[in-house]
Amino acid sequence: RKSQFALLSNVYSLVAKQSKHDMRKVIHSFKVGIAFVLVSFLYLLDPLYKKVGENAIWAIMTVVVIFEFSAGATLGKGLNRGIGTILGGGLGCLAAILADEIGGIGNAIIVGTSVFVFGAAATYFRLIPSIKRRYDYGAMIFILTFNLVVVSGLRTDKVMELARERLSNISMGFAVCVFTNLLIFPIWASDELHYSIASKFETLACYIEGYLEEYFRLVNEKENHSNTSFASCKSMLHSKSSDESLANFARWEPWHGKFGLSYPWDKYLQIGDVLRELATTIVSLKDCLQSHRQPSSALRQSIREPCEVVGSSLAWTLRDIGESIMKMERCRPKAFIAPKLQSMKQELSLVTYSKLGAAENGEGLAMASFV
Amino acid sequence: RKSQFALLSNVYSLVAKQSKHDMRKVIHSFKVGIAFVLVSFLYLLDPLYKKVGENAIWAIMTVVVIFEFSAGATLGKGLNRGIGTILGGGLGCLAAILADEIGGIGNAIIVGTSVFVFGAAATYFRLIPSIKRRYDYGAMIFILTFNLVVVSGLRTDKVMELARERLSNISMGFAVCVFTNLLIFPIWASDELHYSIASKFETLACYIEGYLEEYFRLVNEKENHSNTSFASCKSMLHSKSSDESLANFARWEPWHGKFGLSYPWDKYLQIGDVLRELATTIVSLKDCLQSHRQPSSALRQSIREPCEVVGSSLAWTLRDIGESIMKMERCRPKAFIAPKLQSMKQELSLVTYSKLGAAENGEGLAMASFV
Repeated sequence: RKSQFALLSNVYSLVAKQSKHDMRKVIHSFKVGIAFVLVSFLYLLDPLYKKVGENAIWAIMTVVVIFEFSAGATLGKGLNRGIGTILGGGLGCLAAILADEIGGIGNAIIVGTSVFVFGAAATYFRLIPSIKRRYDYGAMIFILTFNLVVVSGLRTDKVMELARERLSNISMGFAVCVFTNLLIFPIWASDELHYSIASKFETLACYIEGYLEEYFRLVNEKENHSNTSFASCKSMLHSKSSDESLANFARWEPWHGKFGLSYPWDKYLQIGDVLRELATTIVSLKDCLQSHRQPSSALRQSIREPCEVVGSSLAWTLRDIGESIMKMERCRPKAFIAPKLQSMKQELSLVTYSKLGAAENGEGLAMASFV
Repeated sequence: RKSQFALLSNVYSLVAKQSKHDMRKVIHSFKVGIAFVLVSFLYLLDPLYKKVGENAIWAIMTVVVIFEFSAGATLGKGLNRGIGTILGGGLGCLAAILADEIGGIGNAIIVGTSVFVFGAAATYFRLIPSIKRRYDYGAMIFILTFNLVVVSGLRTDKVMELARERLSNISMGFAVCVFTNLLIFPIWASDELHYSIASKFETLACYIEGYLEEYFRLVNEKENHSNTSFASCKSMLHSKSSDESLANFARWEPWHGKFGLSYPWDKYLQIGDVLRELATTIVSLKDCLQSHRQPSSALRQSIREPCEVVGSSLAWTLRDIGESIMKMERCRPKAFIAPKLQSMKQELSLVTYSKLGAAENGEGLAMASFV
């Protein structure tokens, strides 16, 4: 009965752990459904349909395409789409009018040339990394709108009206998206970035402690295979791209919670880089654990105490910084932490020229350069 | 005059280095322009326009949206779009016919419910990581087509015809894309992945040599600041996501060059992971260079020769493996390389228990586990 209970509580904790992220996915799916129904009203309700007509498909398309998981991504895509449409539509109208003025076979030539030139130029523009990061979608919509307006300008006389109607429909779709995405259980990319960076400190602290424990456990048990998993430390090494995309989204997000308008997201990326560097050092410590050449246990025992002191102190410092970031409090002044790290380094230098000392010193250095 | 010449040749080599990648961008832009012009013919040429009519905007939209840099990405997006359209259109038609049968207010209720249910379900589906990686775009197009067909089914009687026409237009756009993307200077994601993985071996070999040189240069010059840049080694650490997306695209690519149909792209990802691990070790060696606590130069000199032998041998092995991957030749048998690495390790163990030995041993281990 007792084991059953333990099993149940295990399952429960597993579900609870997973559910936080899964619940967000379910909520997101529901929000998308609601947005679709809202935008369908343009077709479903007669008075609305009479006003917008066939162009309502542009509103539906907008909702499908720009509704993203986080608020920042949705806003970013929506603004990109809006600006791309306006620019593309404006230039397209100009080209269409110019082509119309000339008329005849010149008309088709101008349309073909402008489609080629603007398409190729905007595509090249999209391939520039700094543009690609933030305005890729806008450039694509620019090309799309430009082509549609120029080309269909050949066949309809009401280019301007067409462009205006589509734009207003896209704005309607955007409004529906903003309404459902930001007002119903919003998911902020900035919260996620903040949490992910702050919790990395805690993860690294756990690894340092786990590593030391493992290292000195080997002394007692005289066996040589380690079972500490460095998996999540390694996954941290590969978190650069996800951090960057979160920061990109976060930049689009308006003032909310504790985050102001010009919040320093770049600093988060820098901290992330430093933490990844520290994680590199920690992961490479694994080699020491797996090495067949281990110091004698007497030697190991002799360095045990100072190493554990330094390790737990390092872990404490990391947790402290992480917590102060998490709570957005002012960190302990540098003057308070830096001498402590310096003294740790000195202590280590005194204690040992051995392998472990070197490795730990590497960490100390990384920390020192961080603080 | 001589310095001018040197400057010129410097500039030239810089341009030549950049131009290979830049030329590809320019070629890609031109290809996009050509595809746009080709698809515009649907509007520009009267006989074609009479056949396809207003629905030609779907062909243009398809070209704009699915034309990607590499052949694999274009094919993947195109197939996703095709399958998504067929599934979404089919289900949408069924739902529209069902709603039509019921009629009256029930009609609107069925449309609203089906839009909500299918939208929410497909959105949840999109958030599953394994689906997101390969079929994200297809799921989006499924939602889009389903919504458009169901909702516009309310207002037009010719739902089936509309869906059929749009599908044929999308196929036309896809055909134009495949034609221009695959037949004019195709850019294969598989080539890029192959080259990037194989050249990583060379980069790592250079770093090992550079590190050793730096380490023993310090002995002679008695100065303690290093100027070896580990930047590209670090960027290798963050190459996981770009490798994965290349492999994703490569899977869509048909037989070409030396790559067969079911080429083992997963193996490339595994090799990439192992190389990143090795890069982690090499980057962490930097700490040894920067450490203030350095062994005496006599001690260093004493380990110099064996270390350089081992280092250059390691580098040679890496280059050898990298070249055999690059040329797709069978590698030297494992039985040939492994004992050599074993003996290297032994040699190192004999030579030194010092810091450098430990670090090098880590590398040897990583290599051994790789081979």
